[in-house]
Amino acid sequence: MPAMDKSPTPPAASSDTAGGGAALGRRRLLSGGALTLGGALAGAGIVAAAGDGSGSASGTGAARPQNVAYGVQKVPFHGRNQAGIATPAQAHGVFLGFDLAPGVDRAALGRMMRLLTDDAARLTQGEPALADTEADLAELPARLTVTFGFGPGLFKAAGLEDQRPASLTPLPRFSIDRLQDRWSGGDLLVQICADDPVTVAHAQRMIVKDARSFARLRWTQRGFRRGRGIQDDGLTQRNLMGQLDGTANPVPGQDAFAKAVWTDSGPGWLRNGGTTCVVRRVRIELETWDAADTKAKEFTIGRRLRTGAPLTGTHEKDVPDFEARDALGFPVISEFSHMRRARVNEDRLKIFRRPYNYDDAPDSGGRPDTGLLFVAYQRDIGEQFLPIQRRLADSDLLNQWTTPIGSAVFAVPPGCAPGGWIGETLLG
Amino acid sequence: MPAMDKSPTPPAASSDTAGGGAALGRRRLLSGGALTLGGALAGAGIVAAAGDGSGSASGTGAARPQNVAYGVQKVPFHGRNQAGIATPAQAHGVFLGFDLAPGVDRAALGRMMRLLTDDAARLTQGEPALADTEADLAELPARLTVTFGFGPGLFKAAGLEDQRPASLTPLPRFSIDRLQDRWSGGDLLVQICADDPVTVAHAQRMIVKDARSFARLRWTQRGFRRGRGIQDDGLTQRNLMGQLDGTANPVPGQDAFAKAVWTDSGPGWLRNGGTTCVVRRVRIELETWDAADTKAKEFTIGRRLRTGAPLTGTHEKDVPDFEARDALGFPVISEFSHMRRARVNEDRLKIFRRPYNYDDAPDSGGRPDTGLLFVAYQRDIGEQFLPIQRRLADSDLLNQWTTPIGSAVFAVPPGCAPGGWIGETLLG
Repeated sequence: MPAMDKSPTPPAASSDTAGGGAALGRRRLLSGGALTLGGALAGAGIVAAAGDGSGSASGTGAARPQNVAYGVQKVPFHGRNQAGIATPAQAHGVFLGFDLAPGVDRAALGRMMRLLTDDAARLTQGEPALADTEADLAELPARLTVTFGFGPGLFKAAGLEDQRPASLTPLPRFSIDRLQDRWSGGDLLVQICADDPVTVAHAQRMIVKDARSFARLRWTQRGFRRGRGIQDDGLTQRNLMGQLDGTANPVPGQDAFAKAVWTDSGPGWLRNGGTTCVVRRVRIELETWDAADTKAKEFTIGRRLRTGAPLTGTHEKDVPDFEARDALGFPVISEFSHMRRARVNEDRLKIFRRPYNYDDAPDSGGRPDTGLLFVAYQRDIGEQFLPIQRRLADSDLLNQWTTPIGSAVFAVPPGCAPGGWIGETLLG
Repeated sequence: MPAMDKSPTPPAASSDTAGGGAALGRRRLLSGGALTLGGALAGAGIVAAAGDGSGSASGTGAARPQNVAYGVQKVPFHGRNQAGIATPAQAHGVFLGFDLAPGVDRAALGRMMRLLTDDAARLTQGEPALADTEADLAELPARLTVTFGFGPGLFKAAGLEDQRPASLTPLPRFSIDRLQDRWSGGDLLVQICADDPVTVAHAQRMIVKDARSFARLRWTQRGFRRGRGIQDDGLTQRNLMGQLDGTANPVPGQDAFAKAVWTDSGPGWLRNGGTTCVVRRVRIELETWDAADTKAKEFTIGRRLRTGAPLTGTHEKDVPDFEARDALGFPVISEFSHMRRARVNEDRLKIFRRPYNYDDAPDSGGRPDTGLLFVAYQRDIGEQFLPIQRRLADSDLLNQWTTPIGSAVFAVPPGCAPGGWIGETLLG
C-alpha cells in the first residue's frame, strides 16, 4: 500500500503550480499516480439524510432551522489582500507559529510558500489538497481562510533583512509582561480560521504536513468565538470576562478600516495589500476577576458590562463623554479605564483586533487556564500598536486581571492572483 | 469589593434549593445580598445589532442565513432521564473527571450534587448560576446539557458499595490498551455539551468552581463535532480519520434505543431512568493511517470511505451482506473488519455511541495528537460494552491505527423532577 495510491486528483489542476520546484514536482508526481481513484471520489454524491430525533430541543427558537448553508460557504482565496483579515471572524481559529529549519533559504522558502499557497487555495474552496489524505473532510470549507505571516527570522533566513519593515522586531518587554518562550516568537505564522472545528482540524493537518519539511512547529494556539447562528452576526461578542469586546473596532469595508490596516509605507513588497499582525496570548486572571464586583469591573473598563455602553451613555455605540464628571467632580470615565487608555481617534492610528478566546484545561485545583488570543492587524506596528500598548502597560486598570504571556509579530504579505503565490513579492 | 455584591439574583428562585444544607445555605446568603444589582441585570435587554461587513463570503450558500435560533435553544433539564444522552450530540463537549477529596462522605456528596444540580438546572435554561460571576455569558444556552456520572470510588466514599452495579469496575486491560493515568479513572464525571464553545466554557467554569470544595479535577477532555448549520443535522458525521461514524447507532426516540440504554436490572436506584457510561480516549495514529491507501482503509472498516456504504452495498444504510464472497471466494467484508467485529444484532446488546473528536497541539515535528473521545452509553457495561470491546481487541484490523490511552466508567443516575436533584435515589 504505497502512499501514492491514495491522493485524490484535484478537480482542476491550477496553473500556478507549474514552476513549483522540487517539492511541487514531488506532489505532482504523487497526484499523477492516483487518477483512477481520484475520479471515483470526485464523482460520488453526498450521502443521504437520516432521521436524528432532534425534536428534543425546545425554547423560543425550537423550530429546527432549515438553513444548513454555513458549511458550504466559501471565502475567495485570491485577491489584493489575503483572506482572514477583513473576513468577519469565523467561529474557530488556530494559530501556528513555525521556526524555519536550518538551511532553509530564499529558494526553499519560495518552494514552501508555493506549496502552502496551493494547499490553502484548494482547501478554502472546498477541494482536497493535492496530497490530501482525508479528501472527504475537505468538502465543507465553512468560510475557511488560511493567512500567512512572516516573522523577523524569515527575512534573515532569506538574506533579505533590508526588506524587513523597520518596526517588525520583537516587541519591547512591557512591565506587565510575563512572556513565555513557548508562546512567543516564530518565523512563520499560519492563521487557520473556519466556522467549523472539523474543517479547521483537517486544514491544520494538511498545512502542518506540508510545512514540516521546511520548519518545526514552535507553538499552536487554538481559539474560539460564538459559533454561526448562535447570535446575530452583527452583534458584538462577549469575551470570557463577560465584556462586549470589539465595540470600537474599525469595520471592514469602511474607509477607516483600509486606512488603519493596509500598509502604505516601508518596503515596496508589502505595500500593495500587505499588513502586519501582532499575536499576543493574554491570560485572564479569572479567579480575581470573579472576586471583583460589577461596579469595579465597569469602572475598570469604562463601560457597562451588560450593554457595553460607555458609563456616560446608554447604548453600546454611544460616543463616550470623557469630560463628564460625577457629583464629586471626578471623571465618570476614569483616566485609567481600559477604554480611555486604549482609545484612538485618528483612523490611521487605530488597530484592527480579531481576537479569539482560549480555554485550556484547568489545573487539578480547578484554577482556569483561560484568556484571549489577542490578534491585531495594522499598517505599522511601531506607529499604531506600540503607542497603544505603552499607554495600556503604563496604567490600565485592567492590567490587574490580564497578563500577557506570549508575543509574536509578523509581516503579512499581500494576497495573490490565480497563478501567483503568497510571498512572491518578497521571495520571488 | 466583597464577592457577595456581584451575584445576580436568579429570575425565579427554584424551590428545590430549600433543603440544600450548608453549601446551598451559603449560596442563598450570597444571592440574597445582591437583590438590587440582580434586578438591574435581569431588566436589561439585548444590545442592538450593528453592521459587520459579512457580505464577503460567497459560494452556493452565500445568502446570509437569517436563522440565529441556535443560541436560544434549550434542552429541558428535568425528566426521567438526564439530558445529554438521548439529546442529539451538540457541537462541543467537555468531559470532566473528578477525584473526591478525602473525607467527602455521603452527606457531603448530597450537598455537592444539590449544588451542581442547581447550577445545571439554571444554566441549561439560559439563567445564571446562583453565584454566577459572568451572568451575561449564561444567556445563550445553545442546547446546553450537563450530565453527571458516578465512578466506582464514589460508592466507596459514600459507604454504599452494595449499591454499585456489579460491572461498574475499571475495564480489564486489553492487549491494545496503552492507558495513561492522566486520562483514566475518576469518581465523578461531568459531561458538558452545547452547540457553542463560549457556552461550554462558561458552564465549565461555574461547575468547576462549585465542585472544587468537594473534589479535585483529575482530567479535562474537550471534543468537537461538526457545528450546527454546517451540514444537515440528520447526516452521519465524519471523524478525523474521514470515516462516517455512527451509521449503525441506535436512534434516540426509537424502541431499540430505550432497550439498549436505560438500565432495567441491578440496584434499584439506577433502574428508573439511569444508565452507564464508558469514556475511552482513543488516539488515532494519523501518521500511518494517512499512509494507507483507500482500498486498505475500506477493507479495514468494511465500508466505503466516501459514502459509508458497506462493501456489499451502495448506500450508507444498506444492510451488509456478510455472506457475500468475491471472485476468489474470499468474504467481501473481512472477518476482521471493524464493522464485522463491532456488529451487534440484538437491540438489548447494542451500545449507544456519542463520540467527540479531539485534536490537541501537534508536537514540534508536526506529529498530531488527534483522536476520538469514545463515549458509550448502555444499560450494563458487562453485558454490552465488554463483549464488543473483547471482539475488537482480539482482531479488529482498525487496531493498527487506533490506541486506547484513557478509560473510565460511570453509573449515570436517572434524571430528577423539579425540586429533586441528580443522585437523590442513591445518596438521598
